[in-house]
Amino acid sequence: MRILFIGDVVGDRGVQMIQTYLPQLKRDLKPQATIVNGENSTPVGRGISQKIYKQLLESGADVVTMGNHTWDNKEIYEFIGSTNKLIRPANFPGKDVPGRGWTKLKVNQATLAVINLQGRVFLPPLDDPFAVADKLVTEIRKETPVIFVDFHGEVTSEKRAIALYLKGRVSAVVGTHTHVQTNDAQVIDHQTAFMSDAGMTGPAAGILGMQPASVISRFLNQRPARYEVETSEPGIMSGCVIDINDETGHATKIKSVLIDHDHPYDR
Amino acid sequence: MRILFIGDVVGDRGVQMIQTYLPQLKRDLKPQATIVNGENSTPVGRGISQKIYKQLLESGADVVTMGNHTWDNKEIYEFIGSTNKLIRPANFPGKDVPGRGWTKLKVNQATLAVINLQGRVFLPPLDDPFAVADKLVTEIRKETPVIFVDFHGEVTSEKRAIALYLKGRVSAVVGTHTHVQTNDAQVIDHQTAFMSDAGMTGPAAGILGMQPASVISRFLNQRPARYEVETSEPGIMSGCVIDINDETGHATKIKSVLIDHDHPYDR
Amino acid sequence: MRILFIGDVVGDRGVQMIQTYLPQLKRDLKPQATIVNGENSTPVGRGISQKIYKQLLESGADVVTMGNHTWDNKEIYEFIGSTNKLIRPANFPGKDVPGRGWTKLKVNQATLAVINLQGRVFLPPLDDPFAVADKLVTEIRKETPVIFVDFHGEVTSEKRAIALYLKGRVSAVVGTHTHVQTNDAQVIDHQTAFMSDAGMTGPAAGILGMQPASVISRFLNQRPARYEVETSEPGIMSGCVIDINDETGHATKIKSVLIDHDHPYDR
Amino acid sequence: MRILFIGDVVGDRGVQMIQTYLPQLKRDLKPQATIVNGENSTPVGRGISQKIYKQLLESGADVVTMGNHTWDNKEIYEFIGSTNKLIRPANFPGKDVPGRGWTKLKVNQATLAVINLQGRVFLPPLDDPFAVADKLVTEIRKETPVIFVDFHGEVTSEKRAIALYLKGRVSAVVGTHTHVQTNDAQVIDHQTAFMSDAGMTGPAAGILGMQPASVISRFLNQRPARYEVETSEPGIMSGCVIDINDETGHATKIKSVLIDHDHPYDR
Ligand SMILES: [Fe+2]
Ligand SMILES: [Fe+2]
Ligand SMILES: [Fe+2]
Ligand SMILES: [Fe+2]
Ligand SMILES: [Fe+2]
Ligand SMILES: [Fe+2]
Ligand SMILES: [Fe+2]
Ligand SMILES: [Fe+2]
Repeated sequence: MRILFIGDVVGDRGVQMIQTYLPQLKRDLKPQATIVNGENSTPVGRGISQKIYKQLLESGADVVTMGNHTWDNKEIYEFIGSTNKLIRPANFPGKDVPGRGWTKLKVNQATLAVINLQGRVFLPPLDDPFAVADKLVTEIRKETPVIFVDFHGEVTSEKRAIALYLKGRVSAVVGTHTHVQTNDAQVIDHQTAFMSDAGMTGPAAGILGMQPASVISRFLNQRPARYEVETSEPGIMSGCVIDINDETGHATKIKSVLIDHDHPYDR
Repeated sequence: MRILFIGDVVGDRGVQMIQTYLPQLKRDLKPQATIVNGENSTPVGRGISQKIYKQLLESGADVVTMGNHTWDNKEIYEFIGSTNKLIRPANFPGKDVPGRGWTKLKVNQATLAVINLQGRVFLPPLDDPFAVADKLVTEIRKETPVIFVDFHGEVTSEKRAIALYLKGRVSAVVGTHTHVQTNDAQVIDHQTAFMSDAGMTGPAAGILGMQPASVISRFLNQRPARYEVETSEPGIMSGCVIDINDETGHATKIKSVLIDHDHPYDR
Repeated sequence: MRILFIGDVVGDRGVQMIQTYLPQLKRDLKPQATIVNGENSTPVGRGISQKIYKQLLESGADVVTMGNHTWDNKEIYEFIGSTNKLIRPANFPGKDVPGRGWTKLKVNQATLAVINLQGRVFLPPLDDPFAVADKLVTEIRKETPVIFVDFHGEVTSEKRAIALYLKGRVSAVVGTHTHVQTNDAQVIDHQTAFMSDAGMTGPAAGILGMQPASVISRFLNQRPARYEVETSEPGIMSGCVIDINDETGHATKIKSVLIDHDHPYDR
Repeated sequence: MRILFIGDVVGDRGVQMIQTYLPQLKRDLKPQATIVNGENSTPVGRGISQKIYKQLLESGADVVTMGNHTWDNKEIYEFIGSTNKLIRPANFPGKDVPGRGWTKLKVNQATLAVINLQGRVFLPPLDDPFAVADKLVTEIRKETPVIFVDFHGEVTSEKRAIALYLKGRVSAVVGTHTHVQTNDAQVIDHQTAFMSDAGMTGPAAGILGMQPASVISRFLNQRPARYEVETSEPGIMSGCVIDINDETGHATKIKSVLIDHDHPYDR
């Protein structure tokens, strides 16, 4: 099967990019499953709302993943429990964590499992993503070898480490969170597709999608500054497309997707 | 002028990649200046030695930059003071810091200044890189507008923030340290070339160039594990080439350079 | 002269403790100068307001110091510039930082200088507190050798390091920020009084003065939880009293001050 | 029963303090069980050796606890598996972690359980100490209500949070790691004895027991500096003594123990 993954959607501009380009990408690339990271999709760039979640689905997402901003918009507590298409990092600790950390969907005759995990280097100490992945993957592989992992993490070492740790056991490990696409898309040992970060989807001119002035001001002064989502026109949309052998679960190809001013969409 | 920049050279394999491909790249791309980040160039991947420094120069580097591993091999204290082609982050604090944080070289009729800076997000609290950059750039621009900055940092926000902060005042800001090339090479507002990270040069199969087994073991066990440089064959060489208008100091073009198994060198 | 220092005042309960016990302490201990850290003195435990600032002065404070919460209540921007009795960490970076980082006051025939500094270990990268202290102290000592430093920091190593660095050049280095009084009050080499942390002033039953339930919930779940100031009755008041030789600036004695349920005030 | 706890023993000076004063303290205070934190007891202040471990036992320790330096001296791997009197933080992750995280000993007719845990704030992401404590305590209480916890952590909030979380279920939570004794020994709600940090045992003049010059140099220059254990004469010995009702497991009293130049031992 072919999977299309789109990285962190930021603010209104990000949702607009999804609405504009996701249908075109799906028409042209013909993925059988589409996954979108929506952890920054509210207008303020923190968390997700039910309205936006539905817009992402209507634009073509089959599964929406999250990250460290999962709970920033409290509205998520109201609906995450009643859907299996919205997942949050599986390694959030504690009893009765709302929502779920992985999901599955039928794709043709096969089953695709999607896992969301969060790294711990320079991020809060959730449960060990390596241990949680190990356990989940072992369980899921009893049902299907086609497994996609959105690993939401800060540093390249942790992302590559978990990809190598899961190599041959999952179809793909794609990083999110840094909001900058890396140029290292690769299929490791003809088994597991990997790229350190898919990149973001939203306003191109910002810093992580936020207005530069306040971000720079905070670096200069180290005093609190309110970050506002960048609203200027040029947008960026980032992700990747992965081909997987449904029988073996092995990836055969990964290719980055990038639409921005320097890379206009023309297909 | 045209500048070729090569990201963090790691271990013997990294030095070999430089020796093999840098002459070819220089012959084909014809840069007038070549800059190489050498902070991981010793056999153990930490710091630099005089022998390797000379090898990098002999292979074609005009300037060698460093980063957070600058002082890891104590031998650097013996020779950094007697060369102006090896620079370390300019924002190391304290009195009488050995070596220098920027240098300049004659390129045709113009002067190229090269500045090395280190970020502070998830890295030690050196002096403020924004303030140091501001001061250095103001000073240097009295002599030349052609300024290249190797910004050694962990996170994408800090890297893009300093690029936007210096926009129009320097020719290029290129990130190093994550060892993974980003896919965001761009000339911001027709003024300053930028990419979040140039990527690394060395053994492709490692994690940051280190053997995966010990890195993964440390993630699993959180106990001390000795990291050894990966020694397996396939190598990677990463960087970028930047064209600059000598009169204005504005960049006109930036293009990533990537040589690895999936991107063999053929020119 | 004798100086009374009171550590981080937290919320309404903290202000009440000041109003109740500071006059008594002053009457009994007879300090010539009283310094109070007010960085958590608003009802929500973050920052300071003009009203509370005045209440602290009316209760007997001569100087109010701050810390990492300095700017949390934006109201401070309105009045910090028009008083020399409210100081914030002197090492906040940037141009035209509002307010001042040190102040002085006449005490009998002598002059007492009070400096506020913030540490950088596990705290934001302000300017180097060692370098800023070195410069300030050199300047101030031209006028007076009696210098008190409120060093607002997280870890014991940094606090003791700056005390030893400034030993003989300042009269006292007293730590704040951890909200727990340490049992290490000492005069180092008959020169500089030191204690790692003066402790907090406010509701005794909380965690840092905050209601335990939400703090514990955050540790258990790693999801956002709103911290509210603890409101239950038993209060705590922490600080120290220091005797200084006005001629030499050397401390002769330091003694901790602690009032709580187990240490009722009886004098 | 009465328990004597001694905080982080640092270097040769720390072991000497134990040898000199532990027998005296035991003779005078008459504890039925003695626990010593030995994570810094090698001559270089990192980890423990078999020889020193035996010396601590010979001097009167019944149980030795560890912390973040547990594995720094590799020799521990050789003997930790064959003793039940040396424990390391119970929340080290991974399969087949050498050694054990808790132990028990017969004290008169009762059983004392000792648990070692490590915090995660500003420390590596071990397994969740709250969850591990919850599980261990539930299990151990089937056998005995008398439980002592050495919680090795950096910040006061995490230490107090776990004490309140375990309140009524364990007899005592005593913090270690900061090497500075806090002045907050208390029995919370007549149930659980607590103090944020017991303090260190070793050379008094150092910073964390290390020679100040290199620690200060690192703060000033942010370059690598080798830390050596302070060797000068004056020593410090820190800890606490706790009385527990064997039937209920509730603490009835906690009192800090401190021997240094300003607090000479005279009994
Ligand atoms: Fe994001
Ligand atoms: Fe994120
Ligand atoms: Fe590097
Ligand atoms: Fe680096
Ligand atoms: Fe505070
Ligand atoms: Fe604070
Ligand atoms: Fe220790
Ligand atoms: Fe420790």
